[in-house]
Amino acid sequence: MTTQVIVLNGGSSSGKSGIVRCLQAILPDPWLAVGVDTLVGAMPASMQASDAGIDFAPDGQVTVGPEFRILDAAWAEGIAAMARAGARVIVDDVFLGGAASQQRWQKALAGLEVLWVGVKCESAVAAGREIARGDRTVGMATSQAEVVHQGVLYDLAVDTTHTESLACAQNIATRVRC
Amino acid sequence: MTTQVIVLNGGSSSGKSGIVRCLQAILPDPWLAVGVDTLVGAMPASMQASDAGIDFAPDGQVTVGPEFRILDAAWAEGIAAMARAGARVIVDDVFLGGAASQQRWQKALAGLEVLWVGVKCESAVAAGREIARGDRTVGMATSQAEVVHQGVLYDLAVDTTHTESLACAQNIATRVRC
Amino acid sequence: MTTQVIVLNGGSSSGKSGIVRCLQAILPDPWLAVGVDTLVGAMPASMQASDAGIDFAPDGQVTVGPEFRILDAAWAEGIAAMARAGARVIVDDVFLGGAASQQRWQKALAGLEVLWVGVKCESAVAAGREIARGDRTVGMATSQAEVVHQGVLYDLAVDTTHTESLACAQNIATRVRC
Amino acid sequence: MTTQVIVLNGGSSSGKSGIVRCLQAILPDPWLAVGVDTLVGAMPASMQASDAGIDFAPDGQVTVGPEFRILDAAWAEGIAAMARAGARVIVDDVFLGGAASQQRWQKALAGLEVLWVGVKCESAVAAGREIARGDRTVGMATSQAEVVHQGVLYDLAVDTTHTESLACAQNIATRVRC
Repeated sequence: MTTQVIVLNGGSSSGKSGIVRCLQAILPDPWLAVGVDTLVGAMPASMQASDAGIDFAPDGQVTVGPEFRILDAAWAEGIAAMARAGARVIVDDVFLGGAASQQRWQKALAGLEVLWVGVKCESAVAAGREIARGDRTVGMATSQAEVVHQGVLYDLAVDTTHTESLACAQNIATRVRC
Repeated sequence: MTTQVIVLNGGSSSGKSGIVRCLQAILPDPWLAVGVDTLVGAMPASMQASDAGIDFAPDGQVTVGPEFRILDAAWAEGIAAMARAGARVIVDDVFLGGAASQQRWQKALAGLEVLWVGVKCESAVAAGREIARGDRTVGMATSQAEVVHQGVLYDLAVDTTHTESLACAQNIATRVRC
Repeated sequence: MTTQVIVLNGGSSSGKSGIVRCLQAILPDPWLAVGVDTLVGAMPASMQASDAGIDFAPDGQVTVGPEFRILDAAWAEGIAAMARAGARVIVDDVFLGGAASQQRWQKALAGLEVLWVGVKCESAVAAGREIARGDRTVGMATSQAEVVHQGVLYDLAVDTTHTESLACAQNIATRVRC
Repeated sequence: MTTQVIVLNGGSSSGKSGIVRCLQAILPDPWLAVGVDTLVGAMPASMQASDAGIDFAPDGQVTVGPEFRILDAAWAEGIAAMARAGARVIVDDVFLGGAASQQRWQKALAGLEVLWVGVKCESAVAAGREIARGDRTVGMATSQAEVVHQGVLYDLAVDTTHTESLACAQNIATRVRC
């Protein structure tokens, strides 16, 4: 059956966005790319500094509040509806809740053909790339590198520690059914 | 009945994004903001330069191809599903097809309580703001200023020619049922 | 004598950047635009959160430390050297020190033909535009609106409260000697 | 003698910007980072699409015109003056003219203690990163990878093909005299 959704899960600075852009470039059909950054950018600015929304602590810890969860759940329903309506969608996310985060997506994407991809990167390397990016709170990469994969089941995993984004994308693309 | 979706329609550089951010700041509940820029940003880079996708001509004319329309339709279905799942959503769009564009949104948003808002701006003023922004193809503001409103029906219209974004948002907010 | 440098001074969200882009578009010769945002962007990320660098408090107060002042002074010398080497330069700045800030620029720009322009905006209007931008700490516009003009001498002043960026730029352009 | 300027030269997508941000993070003193992107961003929008300015062809070829050269030369004089006035400056550039480009910088930076660094990257890898970035004209990485180093003399060269930005920066930092 044709793949309808690709879900990439990985910690901050693990290289998800680069892989997404390469996938969009090499896959024969057009794919929409929507990620957690898209969702955060769609929220009110005030929610990024409130206990109800999403909080980026100076040490890189990210916590989300009840209002974030409500919008996040509705967002996932919307993404699923886009796929059911015929758009092919690449989702990138950070499963802060590990297996529980995956279960929420599985529920939203029920009935759709999903390719689950883990994007891994050694913590020290991701932390270095976080410095090189310069636009992220230092510490996020390290605090998320392991926890986001706990208990999560994948169809395949890629590791950006020693492999370029394009090569990771080419690997993923071999598993996408057109 | 509670307003579930606010749709803002207006030409390029008419001031939609500023109004959206003010609405998010002043409305008591959190609202998600998703617009045509979000959709274009989610598409493959290659679709921005192909006949199948979206084309920004040097004179500011924007044309969209068949693949853009497919993704655009699925996108609207997804936005509607987000609202049905409980997120309150502000959509900003450029109705290049006028009344036909509105009909597509009406179909997607069937059953939802929608506030339709026209965002108008005198063509010459929008053209000046396009120069001041510096990141848009010059000519888009002028070519879209009138055509996007042809045959479109609104609950209210605001005009940014002589009114600030915040005042427009405050006007719109009085019509939002919480 | 030919104008070599245009200095625009005004508070945050007073509309300086829009005027600068319009000036670049309408002036017959190419002008380089370098502003305080360019300088801040050139500094190490760490200086934006240290007492030695620049501090953006949650209430919009901006304070600069000793290391910022050293780089700021060298920056002004560099801008002056660009102009002496033949580039025509538009500088936009926020004179947090009022007249003292102007004196530092006057010293750096000694011997150059400078057009001094004040960019004013009613505090309440600038505060509304700050919300509409969505990317600035709320409170900067209000806290800076008056203080940056105290004791500063201008060749002309423009007021963006009721005048578009392009019209302000056209006014300024009449005073630029080519 | 104390290093006053670090010049990094490399093709598009060779990894210069990441190294610059890491250098700013790890060097004990604050360093200003100004690069060719800063210069291009300071130019009028119109110069990016004119024969007199800078032209990014669809195939990635970059050519610069006479007006660009004038502003570029004045820019280099300004950077040198910043360093002479006491700022420590990291410059990143793309020597489209190879040795001739270096000679122009050598002339501007006369009398200053400069560390010349080549940033190399295998053409195919840089081309892949260009796709992963998604914001550059495809083809620039390949067309610039070799030519920018022809005849250029370095104090040291780093290669980002198999080495992370942070490790490259740490290597460079050992050669910076504080």
